[in-house]
Amino acid sequence: MSSIKEYMVQVGQQARAASRELARASTADKNTALLAIAKILDASRPQLLAANAKDTQQAKENNLETALVERLVLSDQRIDSMIEGLRQVATLPDPVGEMTEFAYRPSGIQLGKMRVPLGVIGIIYESRPNVTIDAASLCLKSGNAAILRGGSEAYHSNQAIAEAIKQGLQEVGLSENLVQIVNTTDRSVVDELIAMDEFVDVIVPRGGKGLIERISNNSKVPVIKHLDGICHVYIDDEADLDKALQISMNAKTRRYGVCNAMETLLVHEKIAAQFLPNMANAFFEKGVELVGCSQSQALVKAIQPAIEDDWSTEYLAPKLSIKIVSDLDEAITHINTFGSQHTDAIVSQNYSKTRIFMTEVDSASVMINASTGFADGFEYGLGAEIGISTDKLHARGPVGLVGLTSQKYIVFGDGHTRNN
Amino acid sequence: MSSIKEYMVQVGQQARAASRELARASTADKNTALLAIAKILDASRPQLLAANAKDTQQAKENNLETALVERLVLSDQRIDSMIEGLRQVATLPDPVGEMTEFAYRPSGIQLGKMRVPLGVIGIIYESRPNVTIDAASLCLKSGNAAILRGGSEAYHSNQAIAEAIKQGLQEVGLSENLVQIVNTTDRSVVDELIAMDEFVDVIVPRGGKGLIERISNNSKVPVIKHLDGICHVYIDDEADLDKALQISMNAKTRRYGVCNAMETLLVHEKIAAQFLPNMANAFFEKGVELVGCSQSQALVKAIQPAIEDDWSTEYLAPKLSIKIVSDLDEAITHINTFGSQHTDAIVSQNYSKTRIFMTEVDSASVMINASTGFADGFEYGLGAEIGISTDKLHARGPVGLVGLTSQKYIVFGDGHTRNN
Repeated sequence: MSSIKEYMVQVGQQARAASRELARASTADKNTALLAIAKILDASRPQLLAANAKDTQQAKENNLETALVERLVLSDQRIDSMIEGLRQVATLPDPVGEMTEFAYRPSGIQLGKMRVPLGVIGIIYESRPNVTIDAASLCLKSGNAAILRGGSEAYHSNQAIAEAIKQGLQEVGLSENLVQIVNTTDRSVVDELIAMDEFVDVIVPRGGKGLIERISNNSKVPVIKHLDGICHVYIDDEADLDKALQISMNAKTRRYGVCNAMETLLVHEKIAAQFLPNMANAFFEKGVELVGCSQSQALVKAIQPAIEDDWSTEYLAPKLSIKIVSDLDEAITHINTFGSQHTDAIVSQNYSKTRIFMTEVDSASVMINASTGFADGFEYGLGAEIGISTDKLHARGPVGLVGLTSQKYIVFGDGHTRNN
Repeated sequence: MSSIKEYMVQVGQQARAASRELARASTADKNTALLAIAKILDASRPQLLAANAKDTQQAKENNLETALVERLVLSDQRIDSMIEGLRQVATLPDPVGEMTEFAYRPSGIQLGKMRVPLGVIGIIYESRPNVTIDAASLCLKSGNAAILRGGSEAYHSNQAIAEAIKQGLQEVGLSENLVQIVNTTDRSVVDELIAMDEFVDVIVPRGGKGLIERISNNSKVPVIKHLDGICHVYIDDEADLDKALQISMNAKTRRYGVCNAMETLLVHEKIAAQFLPNMANAFFEKGVELVGCSQSQALVKAIQPAIEDDWSTEYLAPKLSIKIVSDLDEAITHINTFGSQHTDAIVSQNYSKTRIFMTEVDSASVMINASTGFADGFEYGLGAEIGISTDKLHARGPVGLVGLTSQKYIVFGDGHTRNN
């Protein structure tokens, strides 16, 4: 235990020192490093695949769930994607150094803001080796040192990736401590990482809700986190019902296992009889199971009764809860009560109602006549995302490079002193 | 204990409900409420002074420190300041509802951001009744419900102020639960408040470092905090020495007890012999005690030896530590190692060095040829500040109305669905 603590303090100190060094690196340096890592990754396919084979063999012997093994497996195609990811991040604009809002104050000082890296970012994630490269590239480009702690099942794969990253950083003369992948599977590493607020500026946990809640409750370091994605689509009585059908369909069935998928459909009572039977049929054709309130069941017999828990359940599956509401207010109250402040949509042609919805729904993304499926770093033009935040402080919604930076105040003077 | 918990849960639920209601309030409503509170405060002077007299009497009987009693005392002049504060906040621009960065994405959606209140803000502070009004007015204007927990010595004063706020809110038809001042002196209230992450979105602790560290270490709710203000001024060998003297003097002696006061002066060795004796004399004339490194002592005999702890001490007093450094890098390393990421200044006429300093010094405010004294909400044009944050996430530096808000994504579509 003590040796784990010592090891992590060393990792933390090295990361802090490396992050200071990175503050001096130019955009070109960072991009060159990303491309060098891509090249070395490409050349290291045999080592990567061999290391990954060890992990998957071990995982199968330990009877790891099939879905988890699937995420763990590296193929040539997945390595292609990792390489492509690195190249894409290299093409993104560098957020660091952006200077904005400079203006004179009555005292004569010229005040503005400069965008700067957060410093050191700790990322705790499951056994998905591709996340190692995603996280490393976003941290590097945004000028942050990274401490990565991937799931223990991916240990050998991550160490092989770590080797490629190290070589890439060395090749361009950057510190290899800019990206440190924890080289032990000891679970107490996580406890140490989230306690080191002197070395780590933010923790990004990625994984199951249990893990995220545990980290978030115990971390001394601020956490950027994503809990549930309980997304709603509200169909107003003044909705264009064709758009309503298409948006609802897309929000639910585009992909079932994603956090921006609709989990609850809210329908205004005035158009429920006209809208819901067609909508339900379309869902049944796709194999979506429907549960709903008694009013919705009265309209569509095949809708099963929803229980109270359904309104706060993220199915991540071909299942949807349906509720008929008497007005916009009831819809907003339902969303703010049972939702997860992730992404919620209204379908309505009424100007005033869309304004009320977007003002009062307290979610990271609010969609007006558009599918919840758009809530995504790539769709938002962030280029890539480290995650989607359901927090309100700092970054909200999809978190890309800018979300990994902060702004400091800069004051230009010429001998200015304060009078009072 | 259980009854305190129940009481706080009720306070939390009321705050959350009130914050939803406030989301519908117009800027005019909020300003009218602020002015109504100002008027009622003015009319309630006898009650305020009587309640405050009870508190100060009690405080004296309990032998509270004189400095603390002084902060506790309300006078007609202090009530004037509170009233003036409310009126000023009413004149500030409303940050809520600002919509920015709207642009079309390749998918056809139009994506942008809307500025929104954080929700519910918990503020924990010492026995200074004026903070009650400051905090209430900033929260109200920024659209947030407030739960205020002031020091127990100010109990009666705060309850009298609470009554005035309540009347003001009622007068304009806003919920009285928008500003709730905890009506018990039980200390476990703080533990409950920082654990209620379902009802409270952010905690702002104001007070001694011990209190802030304890809250920050134990809070489940995100904290916006201010720890030390260990501010530096670095005098470069290419500094204009007249400006250097004036800025150093102002940064140290404008006021001693403020967090933006200089605590350590760093001097480049090349100009130390020319600069330091004059500078030291100027400080001695003002009665400032100087401690320093051996090099500085060799130049000015009256400088006492500094110990290691001096470099990380916030004196808040007429005392200053002085260190002679061999170059810009040593200055930056010293600041990033011993400073508190609050406010640090360089005095130099060299273009490249000022750029390096502002890029690499990892502090909330970086001053170029200007006094650290400018780091202040009023000087920065924020109108008022709830505090100065030494955190990096979310708000950094002086935190005004904008720091009490967040941004959500808004997507305008017209039936848009996502293809892949």
